[in-house]
Amino acid sequence: MKQDELKFALRGTLIHAPAIGAVEILENALLAVDDGGQIAEVTNPGEQGYAELEQLAAQAGKLEELSPKQYLLPGLVDTHVHAPQWPQLGKALDRPLDEWLQKYTFPLEARYADAEFAERVYRNLARTLIANGTTTAMYYATIHLEASMRLAEICLEQGQRALVGKVAMDNPEQCPDYYRDASAGQGLEDTGRFMEQVLGMPGNAGRLVLPVITPRFIPACTDEMLQGLGELAQHSGCHVQTHCSEGDWEHAYVLERYGKTDTLSLDGFGLLTPQTVLAHCDFIDDADMRVIKGADTGIAHCPLSNLYFANAVFPARKALDRGLQVGLGTDIAAGANPGILHNCQMAVTASRALEDGVNPDLPAEERGTAGTRIDFREAFWMATAGGGEALGLKVGKFVRGYAFDAIVVDTDAPDSNLIIWEDMDNGDDILQKIIYNADRRNIKRVWVQGEQIKG
Amino acid sequence: MKQDELKFALRGTLIHAPAIGAVEILENALLAVDDGGQIAEVTNPGEQGYAELEQLAAQAGKLEELSPKQYLLPGLVDTHVHAPQWPQLGKALDRPLDEWLQKYTFPLEARYADAEFAERVYRNLARTLIANGTTTAMYYATIHLEASMRLAEICLEQGQRALVGKVAMDNPEQCPDYYRDASAGQGLEDTGRFMEQVLGMPGNAGRLVLPVITPRFIPACTDEMLQGLGELAQHSGCHVQTHCSEGDWEHAYVLERYGKTDTLSLDGFGLLTPQTVLAHCDFIDDADMRVIKGADTGIAHCPLSNLYFANAVFPARKALDRGLQVGLGTDIAAGANPGILHNCQMAVTASRALEDGVNPDLPAEERGTAGTRIDFREAFWMATAGGGEALGLKVGKFVRGYAFDAIVVDTDAPDSNLIIWEDMDNGDDILQKIIYNADRRNIKRVWVQGEQIKG
Repeated sequence: MKQDELKFALRGTLIHAPAIGAVEILENALLAVDDGGQIAEVTNPGEQGYAELEQLAAQAGKLEELSPKQYLLPGLVDTHVHAPQWPQLGKALDRPLDEWLQKYTFPLEARYADAEFAERVYRNLARTLIANGTTTAMYYATIHLEASMRLAEICLEQGQRALVGKVAMDNPEQCPDYYRDASAGQGLEDTGRFMEQVLGMPGNAGRLVLPVITPRFIPACTDEMLQGLGELAQHSGCHVQTHCSEGDWEHAYVLERYGKTDTLSLDGFGLLTPQTVLAHCDFIDDADMRVIKGADTGIAHCPLSNLYFANAVFPARKALDRGLQVGLGTDIAAGANPGILHNCQMAVTASRALEDGVNPDLPAEERGTAGTRIDFREAFWMATAGGGEALGLKVGKFVRGYAFDAIVVDTDAPDSNLIIWEDMDNGDDILQKIIYNADRRNIKRVWVQGEQIKG
Repeated sequence: MKQDELKFALRGTLIHAPAIGAVEILENALLAVDDGGQIAEVTNPGEQGYAELEQLAAQAGKLEELSPKQYLLPGLVDTHVHAPQWPQLGKALDRPLDEWLQKYTFPLEARYADAEFAERVYRNLARTLIANGTTTAMYYATIHLEASMRLAEICLEQGQRALVGKVAMDNPEQCPDYYRDASAGQGLEDTGRFMEQVLGMPGNAGRLVLPVITPRFIPACTDEMLQGLGELAQHSGCHVQTHCSEGDWEHAYVLERYGKTDTLSLDGFGLLTPQTVLAHCDFIDDADMRVIKGADTGIAHCPLSNLYFANAVFPARKALDRGLQVGLGTDIAAGANPGILHNCQMAVTASRALEDGVNPDLPAEERGTAGTRIDFREAFWMATAGGGEALGLKVGKFVRGYAFDAIVVDTDAPDSNLIIWEDMDNGDDILQKIIYNADRRNIKRVWVQGEQIKG
């Protein structure tokens, strides 16, 4: 490459998951970022091109070295965030779901009619997620056009790759009077306007921030709304996000209303596309899995949230084995932790509960479901490249042509529970320890599309 | 009280759990600590004695005010820690339990024959637990007398209330050749010597550090060892710790060896006393619960560890409802997080999995176990006063006559995921948010027996 095309090169230890279940640790590797923020080259000592790149970068004064206790990881991808619920994080988790929604969530979301309130919350949220290493986030905003635009603008301004949806919800039978789209027509019109405005934001020519067609979930929408959003999705090629078979109630509601599953119903409305992400999917069956795979649609697995509000654990092992595209989601605020690393460990933990079962009164053979566990490798995949695949974005791996979205994890941060013993820990151990005990203080630097946004 | 008996008084917002399921939030309360490190008085504005205490403390220059964003909580109690496994934290969790033990844990524990190695690890561990707010910890050390003494000395030196056991394990059929007591006689003799040495440590007249009789678990011990340790427990009144019905394998092994459960077997050896703490107890039945309650014995509930290695979730709700004394344990390193606050949220999370079940292929009514959830109140109880009860120590509440073991949680720490919205969060919300998102940086100060050991 030419010197003026090189933005910078980094030398250090890279850890990423190039394929499901595989972790690659590249020591003393050189990674070149081009002037467009893409990865131009990844090369290892002794390989062709290493010495040339080293020389080129050094001569240009663009060679940076990570310290021996720092690790470069792909940026974390959060495929499911309810941005307006941010102040509710960790609150009222002792309440039943219905009360949680009616007494806390909907009244809170309604407050985003006030764009100043939105500004205050969304700034705090985006800053916090970036601090935790989330380089890409797929957000639900609220029904409000102005506040939803604020979220898009704030992400762009803070440099976070974001997919943002103005929420569509117009079903008077399921949504409170004080918080729903006035009509399907209004909701569709606002969605269309939101898409235009996001794509037209000054500074967004590179499409760092993308609009998302966002039917909240089937119960919250009328047929007219679902039909209209499906047509919009088909015509625009825009991303889509919604909830799918999250819990017993929702799953049963849709079966009752349409005589078929969420997955088949959404597909019938044209809402399953390669740009769609379905949150949760705990109760999808084998046929649903085939449809989702065939549609090239992604899944947002939200392990912490699921243990509170989904009545079951998503069968991640099965979904990955069948070739589905699965990323991780915090599901703020049903998931009470803003970190994707935390959800990495929760994905492993939840899968262990699924495999072994939980009820000690049952004999072992009736308690669990053999062969359903995942380990830190699959969890790390979902947190990075799997999330990228689910979103249809080239992020999450250190591969030429992918965007340089990355974090530096410093295992030597002061006042941290992440403790590496040099004489006892190998590379796999270090990654596993990062997943279990790194926190935002260990995340020293964050880049999105080659731009450093933390550190 | 007299001025010279007052060590200091603190004014601020106190949060504690005076009873199971109850959270008390005392605003602008005054708490007096006497020169022995006990709580001498807790009084609220307008109550008798408030003005007098305020005046007394102020005149003596011993009145300290917490900031409005700081909360005084009881120190956290960790009832189950394997100290030598500290370097293994977060490692090899993808391996089967047998491999985890044989390839990682036992070889690591064997290294503590080297007291210098022990010193290095144990200093780091005690410092880390204190930084995370653990004011009392019940530790398993290893079979080695010298290294176990180092752990006791380090805790005393760092000011942490500790209960430390030299591990007894002599069964050649279950313990590796390179890591077991040479004989039951040797193990018993070393245990006796260890007890004496701990109680005789210079500076330990106040018994901040206590020795614990520690049969690793039934499978690791011969009958002679269990019998001998039971007699020692009965004669000495010393604390006892062991594992009880942790997983399917252990539970079945004991049933096979003795024709009765762990609980009944341990009781038969005289090992169930009011000073005993049984770790895990996932598979105890109703009769076991009655025996444990009758013996006034405590339970260490280790929710994170259980989801990896115990094959089931401990029925905390049922145990608490039946009046059992239950504390929380990290179970380092089978539990991959050193924080009791983290285990607080995991106790809630695990109970939700137990209540709702985990397998989406089952109908809801067969999937879960109704009425088994706990919430943050019970979890906070177990993390503080419940742990104190289980250990038979007067710690974990802000009550006159209890030791002043406490932490200050600062909700305004920089670079933290704990975010309080003053206009939206009440006292319960704040405690719940602390449990879900506070970390060691929020724990600004730590006291044990009135002595400040952090901050």
